Amino acid sequence: MSKTRLEAFSDAVIAIIITIMVLELKVPHNPTAAALGELWPVFLSYLLSFVYVGIYWNNHHHLLQTASTVTGGVLWANLHLLFWLSLFPFATGWTGENHFAPLPTALYGVVLVMASLAYYGLQRRIVAAHGDRSVLARAIGRDVKGKASPLIYLMAIPVAFANPWVANAMYVLVAVMWLVPDRRIERTLTTPAT
Amino acid sequence: MSKTRLEAFSDAVIAIIITIMVLELKVPHNPTAAALGELWPVFLSYLLSFVYVGIYWNNHHHLLQTASTVTGGVLWANLHLLFWLSLFPFATGWTGENHFAPLPTALYGVVLVMASLAYYGLQRRIVAAHGDRSVLARAIGRDVKGKASPLIYLMAIPVAFANPWVANAMYVLVAVMWLVPDRRIERTLTTPAT
Amino acid sequence: MSKTRLEAFSDAVIAIIITIMVLELKVPHNPTAAALGELWPVFLSYLLSFVYVGIYWNNHHHLLQTASTVTGGVLWANLHLLFWLSLFPFATGWTGENHFAPLPTALYGVVLVMASLAYYGLQRRIVAAHGDRSVLARAIGRDVKGKASPLIYLMAIPVAFANPWVANAMYVLVAVMWLVPDRRIERTLTTPAT
Amino acid sequence: MSKTRLEAFSDAVIAIIITIMVLELKVPHNPTAAALGELWPVFLSYLLSFVYVGIYWNNHHHLLQTASTVTGGVLWANLHLLFWLSLFPFATGWTGENHFAPLPTALYGVVLVMASLAYYGLQRRIVAAHGDRSVLARAIGRDVKGKASPLIYLMAIPVAFANPWVANAMYVLVAVMWLVPDRRIERTLTTPAT
Repeated sequence: MSKTRLEAFSDAVIAIIITIMVLELKVPHNPTAAALGELWPVFLSYLLSFVYVGIYWNNHHHLLQTASTVTGGVLWANLHLLFWLSLFPFATGWTGENHFAPLPTALYGVVLVMASLAYYGLQRRIVAAHGDRSVLARAIGRDVKGKASPLIYLMAIPVAFANPWVANAMYVLVAVMWLVPDRRIERTLTTPAT
Repeated sequence: MSKTRLEAFSDAVIAIIITIMVLELKVPHNPTAAALGELWPVFLSYLLSFVYVGIYWNNHHHLLQTASTVTGGVLWANLHLLFWLSLFPFATGWTGENHFAPLPTALYGVVLVMASLAYYGLQRRIVAAHGDRSVLARAIGRDVKGKASPLIYLMAIPVAFANPWVANAMYVLVAVMWLVPDRRIERTLTTPAT
Repeated sequence: MSKTRLEAFSDAVIAIIITIMVLELKVPHNPTAAALGELWPVFLSYLLSFVYVGIYWNNHHHLLQTASTVTGGVLWANLHLLFWLSLFPFATGWTGENHFAPLPTALYGVVLVMASLAYYGLQRRIVAAHGDRSVLARAIGRDVKGKASPLIYLMAIPVAFANPWVANAMYVLVAVMWLVPDRRIERTLTTPAT
Repeated sequence: MSKTRLEAFSDAVIAIIITIMVLELKVPHNPTAAALGELWPVFLSYLLSFVYVGIYWNNHHHLLQTASTVTGGVLWANLHLLFWLSLFPFATGWTGENHFAPLPTALYGVVLVMASLAYYGLQRRIVAAHGDRSVLARAIGRDVKGKASPLIYLMAIPVAFANPWVANAMYVLVAVMWLVPDRRIERTLTTPAT
């Protein structure tokens, strides 16, 4: 029951974040192709962030599915994750409105790093509450993606000042890496422990 | 359980989309009938989009009701639908603020096409997960409405440049077509398979 | 199950409406008492609307609690109610920003009338689905409040043009009338039918 | 069931409040460090308010977990709490945008006082519905934190006019006090009554 409410609250916050981001796509006052064309960078940054928040929702969904107990520490680790996710609309808007300029691109990377570390912290809290031999612990395994992602984001931050397009390409790359369905947990859930 | 959370997240996103659209009805600074009168096109476009998002919620509700399992592919097909629905407030605001001008009307059609294709994709994913002989597969049947809708939207897009009012009438027509209660699934659910 | 999702969606929409209204309380740029003081009418209109939306949520909660089946007609009657509730933020903002001027006060009354009629329609749909001898039908009884409210709002609309303060007092009066806890349904639920 | 919906509605409202606050972090038009630097006070006030709303959600979660029945009085006590929480975005934005000036800091304290009193009222309503010997009544015990918090906020209000930084430090102090996990209810739930 406790878990249900944690999921419901997280769903609501993530749903609002994903929808607030679209507000940065400000309605142009003229009905012209030129006015629409100016919105491309904002649209692209919205698309990337939508995918990222979707990935977080998906992973959060899988992570919580394996959890059976929710401690006070898990509640706060979850709020910590939601805090960094709540900065996505700001970072997305700043990047898009400034056509992927260096500093906004770097800040976007900072938000990505912090969110991925917060997710990692939440995952560890939940594993700690269930034991190293739990379904979740086995499912996560070495967690290559989870460890590689913040490293790539970290590398992208200085790159953003040299060439923001390369940095943005790195963010896209990590997103694509995650879009490949994460079958780890599903596989472990259906494979009997031996 | 998995399904519950998918529904809850979709409900939240759709609820926010439907409510964000009303923000385009900007509060006028003067308490005059003239100031209110200027909002008619925005109000009409809001009304049309409210009905459309309501139709999507209704159909989504019926579609998920028949589903028993939710795969990773369904999660992403659902996010894909939510992405296009999230562009309703933008398309609605642009159309309304520009008094149903050609280009915004055409863009509205593009969003309608993409959302209907995304819905179709979600439906196919769910049917695929349940088998061709499932309740859902039988309920959908030939899916005349589901196939006609994107075709009508597609036709409306070039029409918008010739006469936007005809294009908007076509959007209204499809909405009315869906408002007629979709008894297919309900009927099949209560009719024993023979 | 169907009912659960109807409630969840309505909760989300009502929650967003109630929270969007507070956005009309625009943050002043100066940290002065004068700047804060100018917000009084907006604050008062927010307070009134918060109470009204709270009343709707409360009544909706009680109404749905007695329902066991949800038909397609109920889904649309519910969306119809949510549509009129979604105009509360606009009507509230217009009234507050224009210091309860006649026309905004009258429009507020129009939204109140339409919302109360939509609620009445939803109630009738649910009763129709459950039968005249159902718990709900007995609980509602003669429904004096439900019938008096739209009449008082209707009377307040012309009054708003003569004296908006009297019209606003009438809105407050109806709200207070509803704030007195509605024990009808609770009573009937615990009283055995004789 | 009744309780579930009260929780769902509160979750939605709190989720929206927490996410609306981030909208005060307005996206700067320039991609410069100077533009970002100007946002520090707004960011800090957002961080403090995020923690406060998180604390309320956490405590609300624990409080409702022990409740088994929800009366009409509890519904309204809950709406009363949500009303004051809904003023957090306004108070946060005003404080942040004016760099923690005296009057906004004092108003922030007023909102904190009112929210804590509303929470106290909700708690009393729930205890009243369950009896003085209930799990909840024992869990709350003397409720030192719950009684000290509004007193500290009250003291901070006049202090804000003398030195707003001291007042803000007092708000931070109370937040930290609550961040220390509240094990009272968890402890009592697992300790058999003797």
